[in-house]
Amino acid sequence: MKPPPGRGLRLAYLLLSLASLCLASPLWKDRDSLMQEEKAQQTGGNLVLSRQEQELSTKLVNLKKKEVEAAIRTGQFPPSMHFFRAKSLIDQSAVFSVLKRMPKGAVLHLHDLAMVSAGWLVYNASYLPHCHICFTPAGSVRFRFSRGPPARLPTPCSRWLLLETYRGQLRDVGAFDRGLLRNLTLVTDAPELAYPSQASIWKRFEEIFLIASGLICYAPVFKAYFYQGLLELYEDNIQYVEIRAILPAVYELDGTRHDKSWSVAAYQEVTRQFVREHPDFVGARVIFAAHRMLNASQIKEAILTAMALRASFPDTLAGFDLVGDEDEGHSLWDLKDALAIPYSMGVNLPYFFHAGETDWQGTSVDNNVLDALLLNTSRIGHGLALIKHPAAKNLSLKRDIPVEVCPISNQVLLLVADLRSHPAAELMAEGHPVVVSPDDPPVFGAKGVSYDFYEVFMAIGGMNADLRTLKQLALNSIKYSAMPPDQKAKAKEVWQKKWDQFVADLSDSFPGEL
Amino acid sequence: MKPPPGRGLRLAYLLLSLASLCLASPLWKDRDSLMQEEKAQQTGGNLVLSRQEQELSTKLVNLKKKEVEAAIRTGQFPPSMHFFRAKSLIDQSAVFSVLKRMPKGAVLHLHDLAMVSAGWLVYNASYLPHCHICFTPAGSVRFRFSRGPPARLPTPCSRWLLLETYRGQLRDVGAFDRGLLRNLTLVTDAPELAYPSQASIWKRFEEIFLIASGLICYAPVFKAYFYQGLLELYEDNIQYVEIRAILPAVYELDGTRHDKSWSVAAYQEVTRQFVREHPDFVGARVIFAAHRMLNASQIKEAILTAMALRASFPDTLAGFDLVGDEDEGHSLWDLKDALAIPYSMGVNLPYFFHAGETDWQGTSVDNNVLDALLLNTSRIGHGLALIKHPAAKNLSLKRDIPVEVCPISNQVLLLVADLRSHPAAELMAEGHPVVVSPDDPPVFGAKGVSYDFYEVFMAIGGMNADLRTLKQLALNSIKYSAMPPDQKAKAKEVWQKKWDQFVADLSDSFPGEL
Repeated sequence: MKPPPGRGLRLAYLLLSLASLCLASPLWKDRDSLMQEEKAQQTGGNLVLSRQEQELSTKLVNLKKKEVEAAIRTGQFPPSMHFFRAKSLIDQSAVFSVLKRMPKGAVLHLHDLAMVSAGWLVYNASYLPHCHICFTPAGSVRFRFSRGPPARLPTPCSRWLLLETYRGQLRDVGAFDRGLLRNLTLVTDAPELAYPSQASIWKRFEEIFLIASGLICYAPVFKAYFYQGLLELYEDNIQYVEIRAILPAVYELDGTRHDKSWSVAAYQEVTRQFVREHPDFVGARVIFAAHRMLNASQIKEAILTAMALRASFPDTLAGFDLVGDEDEGHSLWDLKDALAIPYSMGVNLPYFFHAGETDWQGTSVDNNVLDALLLNTSRIGHGLALIKHPAAKNLSLKRDIPVEVCPISNQVLLLVADLRSHPAAELMAEGHPVVVSPDDPPVFGAKGVSYDFYEVFMAIGGMNADLRTLKQLALNSIKYSAMPPDQKAKAKEVWQKKWDQFVADLSDSFPGEL
Repeated sequence: MKPPPGRGLRLAYLLLSLASLCLASPLWKDRDSLMQEEKAQQTGGNLVLSRQEQELSTKLVNLKKKEVEAAIRTGQFPPSMHFFRAKSLIDQSAVFSVLKRMPKGAVLHLHDLAMVSAGWLVYNASYLPHCHICFTPAGSVRFRFSRGPPARLPTPCSRWLLLETYRGQLRDVGAFDRGLLRNLTLVTDAPELAYPSQASIWKRFEEIFLIASGLICYAPVFKAYFYQGLLELYEDNIQYVEIRAILPAVYELDGTRHDKSWSVAAYQEVTRQFVREHPDFVGARVIFAAHRMLNASQIKEAILTAMALRASFPDTLAGFDLVGDEDEGHSLWDLKDALAIPYSMGVNLPYFFHAGETDWQGTSVDNNVLDALLLNTSRIGHGLALIKHPAAKNLSLKRDIPVEVCPISNQVLLLVADLRSHPAAELMAEGHPVVVSPDDPPVFGAKGVSYDFYEVFMAIGGMNADLRTLKQLALNSIKYSAMPPDQKAKAKEVWQKKWDQFVADLSDSFPGEL
């Protein structure tokens, strides 16, 4: 230790070296209480864990710390990397293996045409008899099932080819199928080059839905797809789901087109069948979602349709939403007359608005978070903009309106690069209600909601996120669902039983322990 | 307009189409007041502008909107792009030309060895007589002025070459000098490839300071560099500056090494000379900054040095700070005994801590924002982590402690990619006090603080940021400086006169108007 300069100071320094050993400086008197205050405020901060849960929590946090330390050494921390590059690292993570096993409650933000791994569409659906394909000038494809050649599309496409015949003529069917697979996801080695802007990735994103819908909207596939979607969620330890559904016309082999009622009825029927076969899955609801590019009168029509569908299917149709690129579409304010119809009529049509899925601030679209709340939205989809709107944020907090946080979607769609800096980090630190959702997992190369839980647990929630955080997120997903109270109680019971088993199992053998 | 489904609904729809024209829905009754509340809360929201300022503000916001619309069309919005690619676009921006002309008040976060464009070091300093160079095995260089060959460095480097002789032997001196220039900045065409991680860019960043210090610490260059630094700020319409200075040993040609007092005296002397020659520049202060990699006893020594220097130079030495990569260095808590010395001794040593220049949350370093506040910091440098710490944020708001926001630095050092999502967007929306600062402009290829103001005005402040925002930021920079009240009043007066002139000039001829 080198002596400090100056004789007087040197003496003072020696005295202080002694003093600092004896006295707790009053500078720090509030430190513990402020840190406690922050810990109590964060998501799950007030949950009381059992002794067994507490022990598991400590193990899990230690495991996280170990993985973070290793990541700092290698310079590869998955939540700071693009998911397309991070996924293989996440798959090797012991924390991730725990999160996969964890019963996660409900998935509340998931889209109808993005429930099932792309491989299922290619290797199952497109191999069904009567599947036709055509090729667009831009190198994309369309599918249609039909007994004879399907009707010409309104958009440019080659003549329809029967896939069975076409595949029979190919030298390398495997390569062809892998090409189809690539068409059905955004996954690529160099996302920065492939998608230089939000506009460009949204274009590809919507293209994927156009491709997939030709397969999914064929009536037999429609039901099988939804069943398979429920199965993928079930296998990811999810107990209930609400899907945003655009309810496109489902068609039969003879060209018959069904109306929206048929689709809702199909969802209801498949859900009932699935629950019968998997009694530890609680159910599914549908949020009818219109595209925000539609004009005001089309949205009025959609609202009236939603009201009618809700009247017909009160247990299945949960409410209404608008989907599509928020920056490009109509703002809620543009559509206010249509959206106020249920209120004016005294009809209860719950809203579940996507709002604030934008980096822009102060634009007309940026007011969506406030307007969604004024329209009494039950939840806010994405809500990245919420932290830039203190009045709206106070309102959502006061009304206990949760934000559906979809980390991987937000990263892939270029809204946030490093997930440590996701706006939900602040919401979680402040104890604003949030739920974790996957949005469109197969399009991003993900599956279920475990990858999103990983991002939240490792990065968005910070090093302090522990088992209480995870438990609270699972509890939130049930609490903020559209289930009626009795079904919520049932779901909670199913979840709790699984949770207790999860805690017990992990207490017996934790990853990495002998 | 297509009729909605169902006869009863169709009637209701018609009635409502009429009703919606007549009635303002009670859904929206709070909308205006909530939006007003948010507008009033944001930075500058309560400033009252003169009629002339108001007109200018409208023109400026319209100009911004025009540039944003054009950026959306081209897909190239500079704040969403890496600054190295965005700079040439910003240089063409009419908004930027206005911001350059705007009197911006004080720059409060700027480093001693990063004040002057790299070109000045290469084309002026390194061309002075007696300048020697050596080449490191990693392809970097070191400089030393000396009458004969300088002493060998403790780290590996080639033998010293007299630059004058060396340049005389080169076929292409221009290429050599451009190489030196590249060594002195982080600028590169493909930053993503050059700097894959925060750790890697910090290494290069600190290397630049090692290279530059050989030139800057030569006594004649030291004074000329600081003078030139003040000139670059002055030319960017800045009225006052506070620099973080590590006060390295300044040397003479004969090898004599000066102590820290000499450096502070030199800063004081150059400042006085500069102010004499530029009476509309108010002055400069020095914040002594120790490296956070130093151990606790070295920091104790630095603190005592800072106290002694402040006693000797009360008008020049403003206080103390710690610098260097926060994630790699000691936390404030690690150093608490040293940092509590002034408080324990009843000595006033103001702190200006870098804190929260990290994306990690819940680590020991992440507590720096809270600990800086508990140590009574006068300002928070960077403070990116503050929004993740509600208790600390409440405290800084209550105590009126501003955050020094350095957008370009944060982007280049990989803390935030798209500046629309900079955490300061939330701070500004909430009216948390902030000042705008450039950190190390020449290292990033920037100059002055106008580029940072551009990022704040175009992106971080959102579309609603207007002339009040800019005026408030300038006023903040004076208010939160370390100047004593009388000097603040003087600075405000100097600034106000320039501001009035700026408003008058622009009202006469606004860019793009005839």
